[in-house]
Amino acid sequence: MRSYRKELWFDVAARRAFLNITPQVEACLRESGIQEGFVLVNAMHITASVFVNDDEAGLHHDFDVWLEKLAPHEPVSGYRHNTGEDNADAHLKRQVMGREAVVAVTDGRLDFGPWEQIFYGEFDGRRRKRVLVKIIGE
Amino acid sequence: MRSYRKELWFDVAARRAFLNITPQVEACLRESGIQEGFVLVNAMHITASVFVNDDEAGLHHDFDVWLEKLAPHEPVSGYRHNTGEDNADAHLKRQVMGREAVVAVTDGRLDFGPWEQIFYGEFDGRRRKRVLVKIIGE
Amino acid sequence: MRSYRKELWFDVAARRAFLNITPQVEACLRESGIQEGFVLVNAMHITASVFVNDDEAGLHHDFDVWLEKLAPHEPVSGYRHNTGEDNADAHLKRQVMGREAVVAVTDGRLDFGPWEQIFYGEFDGRRRKRVLVKIIGE
Repeated sequence: MRSYRKELWFDVAARRAFLNITPQVEACLRESGIQEGFVLVNAMHITASVFVNDDEAGLHHDFDVWLEKLAPHEPVSGYRHNTGEDNADAHLKRQVMGREAVVAVTDGRLDFGPWEQIFYGEFDGRRRKRVLVKIIGE
Repeated sequence: MRSYRKELWFDVAARRAFLNITPQVEACLRESGIQEGFVLVNAMHITASVFVNDDEAGLHHDFDVWLEKLAPHEPVSGYRHNTGEDNADAHLKRQVMGREAVVAVTDGRLDFGPWEQIFYGEFDGRRRKRVLVKIIGE
Repeated sequence: MRSYRKELWFDVAARRAFLNITPQVEACLRESGIQEGFVLVNAMHITASVFVNDDEAGLHHDFDVWLEKLAPHEPVSGYRHNTGEDNADAHLKRQVMGREAVVAVTDGRLDFGPWEQIFYGEFDGRRRKRVLVKIIGE
């Protein structure tokens, strides 16, 4: 069994954003040389997500509006976590969108359906944060 | 390390449904001959889910009512994604229910608690769609 | 490839609670001797979760209030699942919080960001329930 590890760094200027990180994960997979196995891609921060969905700007707008409805940022004082912080909503949004994606590797490629893409979901940006890519296989 | 891959195809007549796919995943595991490892089961489409829960019809009804409340299908025009499509709600519902399940394989069997079953959750059916089963181990 | 398996048992006195189980998972990893691979940690019951987030009491309170808003326990009769049971809400809450975490193992340690901790989320307690820890790697 072989393994590969890389950290991807992001610095999102806004509080919230969705970034398509599929090309970076594909580059990791090529660099690893692994042909059969699993890729784990996970946010290393607890106010961010990694998830698989569609690369469509209208949908990303819908996600943002919907997450604000399910777990609104304001009023900041509505959350007990917000003592010296204002990011409780980001911890909740990340639970809806998920921490990680596990993707199959087949013949050296991400084994995806036609529209599957990997996203970094940032819910408390304006600072450098990391995603872990770990690949195991042969 | 050995690996195994199979696609399971489904054609759900309704827009939404939950299918127990545990028997098909168990058949894959037997076919693979793998005794120790992980099974990844994931929707290959972004308007469907794979998740683990209870095989109980009342609960599935509750899931459907609840998901419609969290992310209603109507009004279709309430989502920016719905330009030429009407499935934005399906992309949102799939985030709540999840894309994938990773299940341990022990002694050649799915290492499940007493009530764990694997489901395909369809949120935009009436066409052929796929689930990927990928197994790695020994 | 090597593999390791252990069940962790919990008996939560309340209906709902969040327990930090990171030390127990770390003990499993040390016992396994595995240096590179993946750890799967999953609830073996379908009314409980395993998830990764922050070990902060205010946030856990916020999670509980939020989950009660998204999927309220009462009225029990509002769910078709509740025929002889009263835990339909627990099945729903578990979908928001997730069944499992897959964590990378690097140099014999959980490959975590600075604040990542693993939690058992109990939504229908007052009895003994299990979490599975399965590790594969080398």
